[in-house]
Amino acid sequence: YFAFSFGPFIGFWAGWEGARKLGALAISGGGQSTSQRLKAIIDYQATVLVCTPTYALHMASEARKGGIDLALQSSVRISVHAGEPGASIPSTKKMIEEAWGAKCYDHPGATEVGAFGFECEPQPGGVHVNEQEFIAEVIDPKSGQAVKEGEEGELVITNLGRIGSPVIRYRTGDLVQPRYQPCECGRPFMSLQGGVLGRVDDMIIVRGVNVFPSAIENVMREFPEIEEFRIEAVQQSALTELKLTLEPGSEYASSAGLAERVSQRFRESVGLRPQVELVAPGTLPRFELKARRFFKS
Amino acid sequence: YFAFSFGPFIGFWAGWEGARKLGALAISGGGQSTSQRLKAIIDYQATVLVCTPTYALHMASEARKGGIDLALQSSVRISVHAGEPGASIPSTKKMIEEAWGAKCYDHPGATEVGAFGFECEPQPGGVHVNEQEFIAEVIDPKSGQAVKEGEEGELVITNLGRIGSPVIRYRTGDLVQPRYQPCECGRPFMSLQGGVLGRVDDMIIVRGVNVFPSAIENVMREFPEIEEFRIEAVQQSALTELKLTLEPGSEYASSAGLAERVSQRFRESVGLRPQVELVAPGTLPRFELKARRFFKS
Repeated sequence: YFAFSFGPFIGFWAGWEGARKLGALAISGGGQSTSQRLKAIIDYQATVLVCTPTYALHMASEARKGGIDLALQSSVRISVHAGEPGASIPSTKKMIEEAWGAKCYDHPGATEVGAFGFECEPQPGGVHVNEQEFIAEVIDPKSGQAVKEGEEGELVITNLGRIGSPVIRYRTGDLVQPRYQPCECGRPFMSLQGGVLGRVDDMIIVRGVNVFPSAIENVMREFPEIEEFRIEAVQQSALTELKLTLEPGSEYASSAGLAERVSQRFRESVGLRPQVELVAPGTLPRFELKARRFFKS
Repeated sequence: YFAFSFGPFIGFWAGWEGARKLGALAISGGGQSTSQRLKAIIDYQATVLVCTPTYALHMASEARKGGIDLALQSSVRISVHAGEPGASIPSTKKMIEEAWGAKCYDHPGATEVGAFGFECEPQPGGVHVNEQEFIAEVIDPKSGQAVKEGEEGELVITNLGRIGSPVIRYRTGDLVQPRYQPCECGRPFMSLQGGVLGRVDDMIIVRGVNVFPSAIENVMREFPEIEEFRIEAVQQSALTELKLTLEPGSEYASSAGLAERVSQRFRESVGLRPQVELVAPGTLPRFELKARRFFKS
């Protein structure tokens, strides 16, 4: 089941074609509301869901509000996610898997180069680069020199099989950590630990600490009460401060102490104490394609 | 350019696949606003537009409001319409052709059987049944007997090449007028004069006159001032009366005398004097897929 809008955004079209090439029945969920899509997924007994991680969580939240337990009532056993990092962020992955009762796979790519990566079945905590179709290099974004295994750098892609948009050594802007160890799945392809860790230009330095939005998302998703959130990097005189806006789900009657707990956990995990603000359910925007939760000001 | 929502409604998917099979660049217009779609059609220099007749007119109206002359500014030279009758209704066809500066083709079909008809290039005032893929019969809906050439009846379809939904002698509910004369295009296929004339069950009898919504639409589309309309068959004591609700386009400063002119023209063409009501621009609903303008009460 393909829950995307079938517009010119190329994100999921390759998945659609791939499903058809496999001979699978591909069900299109274009131009429909979330509740219509949920009904179709359950009625047609779809076994694989393809959408952004954000939208998988949004569907799960809408289902809960409608008294639907997707883990029990849907036949979805695999979910495949692209369009944003998320399916490689451990707590986001766990949240999707629990909500849908399904195994969740990350499938990163970029419009300019194609879908370059995939998560294999053993899921060793990262994604493989499909080196049959892509040449991948990981460089220091400043010096342009290749980073060593285990170091973070920018992913640079050359695509080999793409007719429409061939690129040579294209700087994706994606921050990754390369690994060349053999994988349990048997593939000789390099892997990116933790998937796409963030955007090179999204990194901010708060009180000397390098912070990526994906690290913050990882903390946010540990709290089932948080349905949507927003991250702001606010410049205050000479210092950058982090501000988190949290929106609890309407099914959580009380969110007493939530701000304090998140702040605590944040300090343990990221090493910073953010400003935390709670807002009423339904306040923050929802996203069907790429989510935009990170703001610098 | 495919201006449809890419949901499970099967209407335009066959066209999409057909365009790809031809090797044409197929541009998807799913999940977008009308103004985004117009921009894409102009920017990408789309040459063929595929959508419902209603939506072609709606896009033209939105373009006019935005100061865009599609006949001049778009590269569209052919438009193909399905989902509703309309492209075979002479005044609707003319209106679409003038707005887009393109040649307009009807392409009728039904979800249950497939796209059974097409308009050939000489456009002799009707559509061919694709008798390579379909067996067509036209029957009297009451007696079930075949009607003679030139008489109106219900189209009955047997599809030959469809794996997913094969049907034998399926009553489509479409009212058509068969013709077996040779066509200028050289094809030996039977043709349906005037395309699909209406739905068998939409026919109403007003003061002894058989009226089909398509005949009413034909009159409505002669008036460029009318942007949207609604037809109601109202039961008043023993009589059925026709009520037309007309919504003029906002670019027409004055619609003085419009109701009277429509009523006059209606009497000449259909033989009935309807009640006519004018409403303010933006009052009636707009349609992206099948329009619903005909109501019985």
